[in-house]
Amino acid sequence: MSKFSDPAANLATLIACPSVTPAEGGALAALEAMLKPLGFRIERPVFSDEGTPDIENLYAKLGDQGPHLMFAGHTDVVPVGNETDWTHPPFSAAIADGMMYGRGAVDMKGGIACFIAAVARQMETHGRPKGSVSLLITGDEEGPAINGTDKLLRWAAERGETWDASIVGEPTNPDRLGDTIKIGRRGSISARLTVHGKQGHAAYPHLADNPVPGMVTLLEALLSQPIDAGTTEFQPTNLEVTSVDVGNRATNVIPAAASAIFNIRFNDSWSADSLKTHIAEQLAKTARERHLRPYGHDDIRYELEWLGRPSPVFLTRDERLIETLSAAVTQITKTTPKLSTSGGTSDARFIKDYCPVVEFGLVGQTMHMVDERVALADLETLTQIYGLFIANWFERQ
Amino acid sequence: MSKFSDPAANLATLIACPSVTPAEGGALAALEAMLKPLGFRIERPVFSDEGTPDIENLYAKLGDQGPHLMFAGHTDVVPVGNETDWTHPPFSAAIADGMMYGRGAVDMKGGIACFIAAVARQMETHGRPKGSVSLLITGDEEGPAINGTDKLLRWAAERGETWDASIVGEPTNPDRLGDTIKIGRRGSISARLTVHGKQGHAAYPHLADNPVPGMVTLLEALLSQPIDAGTTEFQPTNLEVTSVDVGNRATNVIPAAASAIFNIRFNDSWSADSLKTHIAEQLAKTARERHLRPYGHDDIRYELEWLGRPSPVFLTRDERLIETLSAAVTQITKTTPKLSTSGGTSDARFIKDYCPVVEFGLVGQTMHMVDERVALADLETLTQIYGLFIANWFERQ
Ligand SMILES: [Zn+2]
Ligand SMILES: [Zn+2]
Repeated sequence: MSKFSDPAANLATLIACPSVTPAEGGALAALEAMLKPLGFRIERPVFSDEGTPDIENLYAKLGDQGPHLMFAGHTDVVPVGNETDWTHPPFSAAIADGMMYGRGAVDMKGGIACFIAAVARQMETHGRPKGSVSLLITGDEEGPAINGTDKLLRWAAERGETWDASIVGEPTNPDRLGDTIKIGRRGSISARLTVHGKQGHAAYPHLADNPVPGMVTLLEALLSQPIDAGTTEFQPTNLEVTSVDVGNRATNVIPAAASAIFNIRFNDSWSADSLKTHIAEQLAKTARERHLRPYGHDDIRYELEWLGRPSPVFLTRDERLIETLSAAVTQITKTTPKLSTSGGTSDARFIKDYCPVVEFGLVGQTMHMVDERVALADLETLTQIYGLFIANWFERQ
Repeated sequence: MSKFSDPAANLATLIACPSVTPAEGGALAALEAMLKPLGFRIERPVFSDEGTPDIENLYAKLGDQGPHLMFAGHTDVVPVGNETDWTHPPFSAAIADGMMYGRGAVDMKGGIACFIAAVARQMETHGRPKGSVSLLITGDEEGPAINGTDKLLRWAAERGETWDASIVGEPTNPDRLGDTIKIGRRGSISARLTVHGKQGHAAYPHLADNPVPGMVTLLEALLSQPIDAGTTEFQPTNLEVTSVDVGNRATNVIPAAASAIFNIRFNDSWSADSLKTHIAEQLAKTARERHLRPYGHDDIRYELEWLGRPSPVFLTRDERLIETLSAAVTQITKTTPKLSTSGGTSDARFIKDYCPVVEFGLVGQTMHMVDERVALADLETLTQIYGLFIANWFERQ
């Protein structure tokens, strides 16, 4: 076996680096040490932004001609939680019963380890690919994602980089390797809803104006009707109220204000803007028409504030990219993968502005959990899938 | 004028004592110094309870035969807030434009000052009343009320004290002296409602169970229907949700639980127990029948916990007591007072278990506020009302 063609060895090296977001933890240096011998040119740009930690990133490229295939991922991992709850220490890469344990095993040092192994094997058997392969790896996917993939793409594009297709190595399979390729993602927006009232004594409610009934009325309106019924490619849009807060500890005091936070995962029926308008109109209508308050107050007085940048919805329509990956999965696993758009957001939301992007990686069941682990057999299978995909994608150009 | 027959002088002495609850602040000592020369026997029991401050109280009695009239009140006052917001220092008893300023001016050092002046004048003109007069004064009405009137009544009763009637000197008049006598009070109970769900990621709501929709459904049920329509003597029962809290700061996380606090002011359609049963049944029915959650979860899983001791509802039916007081008010103010049961709870809720009780005092507009103040004219008027009431009440026995 050639150097770095064993995904388990690659992964063990990466797991040993305690790269809990935002720390680099030696993980990018370890990648550099694998990719350089394979012929990749490496750059390690650091991005910073006020109020967020400086983040190290890595861009590695092999070849200088088109077509250009980019693998994207992250080496940062979520915190380990209570380390004593782990069966094996979270940075030990311990192997037991055919599984390798460690934080990042599936999300997503494992995906990176397999892709590097696949490239190493390709080089050994077929030489350099007829085009370029690059790895775009951030240390800020599990954090605020401000100094990561988004800036790394812009940085590379400004230097003249273009890509023809991208595969993101996130753990896309819910149960078994081969289950699911992601070909899009729902969008995500969050908002804070504040209802204003007037503080007063609970025994004199007519002198006060309790904001809670107005809040209940507005939330009931947001929750009682589905926002849409879903589309061909996407689940129905879904709204979750993630917090409601008043913070009043005096049972004889009517509070002055109540606030709620909600998050919406939206499908391709909407843009972030059209959905914002829809929600704003629904709240305005409810505030005018319905009110649970018995004291003849006017409309519900509320404020709606959209939080942060929305994640856009996207759907990849590059049939060649999707079919090449899907065929490789089927050939290796004897399973026809589902083409899915479900789940959370990923850095693919940034990549889709530069080239077609799909996502395929390991089985996500233990991600972000204690005893995160990956089957050694899955590492081998994913390496074979990535290898076949790389070979066929360059063939089919 | 005899000693202590000037209510403004009495009140100035009391305001100068900084008896912010739970501090005695010299206020009970000042009372003792007024009442002893008038012939009252004084006792100053201190009550304590785990987790609450020790509280000084005062019981003063003149005479040792029936009938026995008890005046009840408190010398503790609420905090002054931002002292620099006051036009005159809150313990200075400054007089300006016919008003005396100071914390406790109307709630309720003023009421005590007038009652003592009324007794002093009665003694001067008619000698000792034909029976007994007592003052039952606590330093724990504005605080938790655990080491105050409740224990003081029990303490006195255990020593053989009985009373035929009681008047509480709280500021009962909303706008003008003579407006309102309180002849009862609504009850008050509070509860915490907790809805349980299952934590999870906002992108995978089917794997979680958001408690917020269940909370909204239960609160909507509690708020959408009046609990009753009121009774002859009482306002409708009213429920105020005083807080709703989740405390989740992550917009991509579905929380595990949501809690709400509500307070109910209830009329004589209910006992605390019958109301508890009614609310519990309403929640149980709603939890079974209605649910905003789209993911096919079962009944809303919730817990209802009643907080603290309920304040009972009561209505005084002693016509002689009510009519004697009402006639005195009418004679002095040329106003027929309203017989009311509105507003918050008071220590009368404890007294009603020992003897018939009514409440009448100053105008409450500035109570608990910056620049609490009383018209000097009102002090004189209330002294005359109390004097006439005392004279007639003993006459009519
Ligand atoms: Zn990941
Ligand atoms: Zn008071």
